[in-house]
Amino acid sequence: MSAFVRGVGTSHFGKQRDTPPTRLAAIAIREALEDAGITDPSRIEAAFVGTVFGAAGGGIRALHAGGITRVPTLTLESACASGTSAFAEAVHAVRSGRYEVVLCLGVEHMTSQFGGAIHPEQTDPEGRSGLALPALYAMTASRYLAEGAVTHEQLAQVSVKNHANALANPRAQYAGSHSIAEVLSSPMIADPLTLLQCCPISDGAAAAVIAAAPSEGGVEVMSVAEGTGRPWGNGSPHVWGFDLVAETARSAYEQAGLSAADVDVLEVHDAFTIGEIVTTEALGFASVGGGGELVERGVTAKGGAHVVNPSGGLLSRGHPLGATGLAQLAEIVWQLRGQAGDRQVPGATVGLVETMGGGASGVDGNACVVALLQGKGQR
Amino acid sequence: MSAFVRGVGTSHFGKQRDTPPTRLAAIAIREALEDAGITDPSRIEAAFVGTVFGAAGGGIRALHAGGITRVPTLTLESACASGTSAFAEAVHAVRSGRYEVVLCLGVEHMTSQFGGAIHPEQTDPEGRSGLALPALYAMTASRYLAEGAVTHEQLAQVSVKNHANALANPRAQYAGSHSIAEVLSSPMIADPLTLLQCCPISDGAAAAVIAAAPSEGGVEVMSVAEGTGRPWGNGSPHVWGFDLVAETARSAYEQAGLSAADVDVLEVHDAFTIGEIVTTEALGFASVGGGGELVERGVTAKGGAHVVNPSGGLLSRGHPLGATGLAQLAEIVWQLRGQAGDRQVPGATVGLVETMGGGASGVDGNACVVALLQGKGQR
Repeated sequence: MSAFVRGVGTSHFGKQRDTPPTRLAAIAIREALEDAGITDPSRIEAAFVGTVFGAAGGGIRALHAGGITRVPTLTLESACASGTSAFAEAVHAVRSGRYEVVLCLGVEHMTSQFGGAIHPEQTDPEGRSGLALPALYAMTASRYLAEGAVTHEQLAQVSVKNHANALANPRAQYAGSHSIAEVLSSPMIADPLTLLQCCPISDGAAAAVIAAAPSEGGVEVMSVAEGTGRPWGNGSPHVWGFDLVAETARSAYEQAGLSAADVDVLEVHDAFTIGEIVTTEALGFASVGGGGELVERGVTAKGGAHVVNPSGGLLSRGHPLGATGLAQLAEIVWQLRGQAGDRQVPGATVGLVETMGGGASGVDGNACVVALLQGKGQR
Repeated sequence: MSAFVRGVGTSHFGKQRDTPPTRLAAIAIREALEDAGITDPSRIEAAFVGTVFGAAGGGIRALHAGGITRVPTLTLESACASGTSAFAEAVHAVRSGRYEVVLCLGVEHMTSQFGGAIHPEQTDPEGRSGLALPALYAMTASRYLAEGAVTHEQLAQVSVKNHANALANPRAQYAGSHSIAEVLSSPMIADPLTLLQCCPISDGAAAAVIAAAPSEGGVEVMSVAEGTGRPWGNGSPHVWGFDLVAETARSAYEQAGLSAADVDVLEVHDAFTIGEIVTTEALGFASVGGGGELVERGVTAKGGAHVVNPSGGLLSRGHPLGATGLAQLAEIVWQLRGQAGDRQVPGATVGLVETMGGGASGVDGNACVVALLQGKGQR
């Protein structure tokens, strides 16, 4: 059976300390319902909520704020991929005939949890070694630099591209016409990753309505795959997370009968610049070590063959963990409907969403979700 | 399509501060796999983990400790019903043909999170009013007492029965031959609920293997229903949680084509004595206000027509939130296979598991899961 994204919605993204997560969720839910043409929230049969740091019951409260009550509700935690995981489960539930119309919600209020960056978990071996997430990504960047697989300038180019894309995204937290030199000379966070190469802390929510029946301009979910990584020290020749993304993507492409060549537009997990580069490789848009050249040649920029993070990505939007995956989904849906305004990728027909969570917890990537979506085409 | 519980396993339950949750999970997973006759953990195709207070990634770490790696993993939070929710999702995933063999895991290490009782969430209206969970249940008990729907002695009888049942359960945290007078004279926690009427804080894990194919002595999942409550102030004539349990149970009975009269043995959410009484009413074993008499008459005791909490329930086992639902499931599976030792309900053929989570978060019950299971019968 098929599943369709009938409507999407998001809050603004940014540091919104005084706006409670319930309010952010209500904004996203209302927009998604409206977008789906649903005036009676009781048409929603079940809800799938992605959130990481919220209090127990926070998902339920967030749904109630959006008028969704008394439906079976799953609250899922898959680290940074929690929102995409909620989407994946919603798709499976609709495809299996369990429900006709469901809501996915991703919400996170980071500023009420963290003064600055996410602090490492003391229960993680990585956390106890001080390997917070910027440090883990920095290790990958250092290796790529040492092996000549990427240059500092190519890393910076990801930031330049994504912040420029965000100039056309009024919901992004940051945007700007940065030069490579500016990116490289911004404050060092975890060598070699500078401030402008790291996604900011953000508060926000995003929602989507998934339905079994197609609709006018509806976007079809061609496939959605989920995976978790192997334990550390698994002998892979690749940097951490690569195998997880590559294997999850392989499954998503296979299920959809599509390949990277078919994908017009992607939203991927650029929590750090090196993340986008490695991810484009793992997704098959470049060979291993070829992701830096890919961004340098403009293949992933507006006007390129495979536009990556037209929204500005996590680098611009920020990373409200549970909301991130559904914010990525919303952008791809807008793109495939030709509704992305000045961010529009002309003629976008096939889109991809990828989110990768973790890299701590003793595992080479806690969770990855890759989804392929298809619109009616505006060619 | 059908789903079968192929194997179950649990850790010991109790305050196990020095035993990390990964170790508890490994014990439960190993026992469940052995019980299912699975020697190669790679036969597990996906995992569903219920946990509430664990760190992000905790579910993944717990699975790795049990030898389950690289499988799609959902970590679910449904308050006290998290483990049962993981079970429900696993059943749906198997029934829909998505997987053949999956693992559910519930795990919680309460003593590393809480010095004493769970402290109220300051983001909850209930929490801000000081309405911790014992106080919420105490309000229900007070109303029942005021209305003459229950007596102090009937409340205490639940504790007497369950602690006596636990004498035959080597994995329970507490057990004892208490008298009604002892229960009533134990320290007051939240008037009228005394210490022996409240479930203790506990650490533990439980696991189950769910499969599409039946097995020798396998237990079939006849139905599993999930629900969430309405917002507070919904005008229900019933005490909080009642409607949620009753509606979820109705759905479970309907799906299974069974009624309360068919159920030989139940594990239900006796976080507090009043909880078991109200739950037996909501599940249809007594009329509203008849639950006290039900326990007084011995209908729910060993030898009664519908044995409730033969394991000793949460009152004896304790309440490691994520693990609770799967510990309940394990008991019912052992009962339906005739493997419950001195706790065995003779001839038990139909069993029921019920878990209710929450009662805070501005909602009349965050989550409820009711499952009906059927064994081959030993009559």
